[in-house]
Amino acid sequence: MDIKSIVKRSSTTLASYLTYEAMRVVVDQLREMDPPRAHWLASFSSTGNMQDGEAYLQELLAVNRDLAFRILTVRQHLAEEVLDFLPERVKAAIAEANHKLRCDHLEQAIGWNAPTGGGDLRTESAAPE
Amino acid sequence: MDIKSIVKRSSTTLASYLTYEAMRVVVDQLREMDPPRAHWLASFSSTGNMQDGEAYLQELLAVNRDLAFRILTVRQHLAEEVLDFLPERVKAAIAEANHKLRCDHLEQAIGWNAPTGGGDLRTESAAPE
Repeated sequence: MDIKSIVKRSSTTLASYLTYEAMRVVVDQLREMDPPRAHWLASFSSTGNMQDGEAYLQELLAVNRDLAFRILTVRQHLAEEVLDFLPERVKAAIAEANHKLRCDHLEQAIGWNAPTGGGDLRTESAAPE
Repeated sequence: MDIKSIVKRSSTTLASYLTYEAMRVVVDQLREMDPPRAHWLASFSSTGNMQDGEAYLQELLAVNRDLAFRILTVRQHLAEEVLDFLPERVKAAIAEANHKLRCDHLEQAIGWNAPTGGGDLRTESAAPE
């Protein structure tokens, strides 16, 4: 398990995702002030070129510098506001999801769906002696 | 800018990404021990159903409990090993990328590509007096 490479790829994925969120923020801002530009940016950004955030920004920079710089600024702001919350949050979400998936599966395996008398069932499955 | 929602969506995206990385780890492990199962898991996981990590795991759990549980375990391990590094790393990567994109653009804008005499150019563009 190459943790170093996984950290690297996860960082790239997360940076690209924040680029996407920054684009959405800018589209939302423009929708009120300048709908045609909002439409243009949304179209430009919907062609699947957002998988690689840096390549997307380079393309955008070549055709519309102002919007590209605006997204850079918002992305930096999002990085400051969002990233510190993620480790604890994702750890908790994964622990909870794992627990739920195991429980759901266990319930299915013993044919115990929507129990109406959990307490009784537990007593029944206790050691009979 | 709804930071709370962006934190939530970023968490979900990151959890799904770690599910994908966990699947890759398990496929790599199986490739040595049990190639047919590695092939089966890789095929099952390549149908675009990995965008939603939880839905993917539920589907897998229904058809192959052992592999699903193995991915749950690896994912939990990855969460512990990887997540804490991400905030600083992604912040630094974004700051560096922003700086580079702005510089590249500035260099293009003033037609200054691959300068052979940076020092001279700087002298030339100084106030002539």
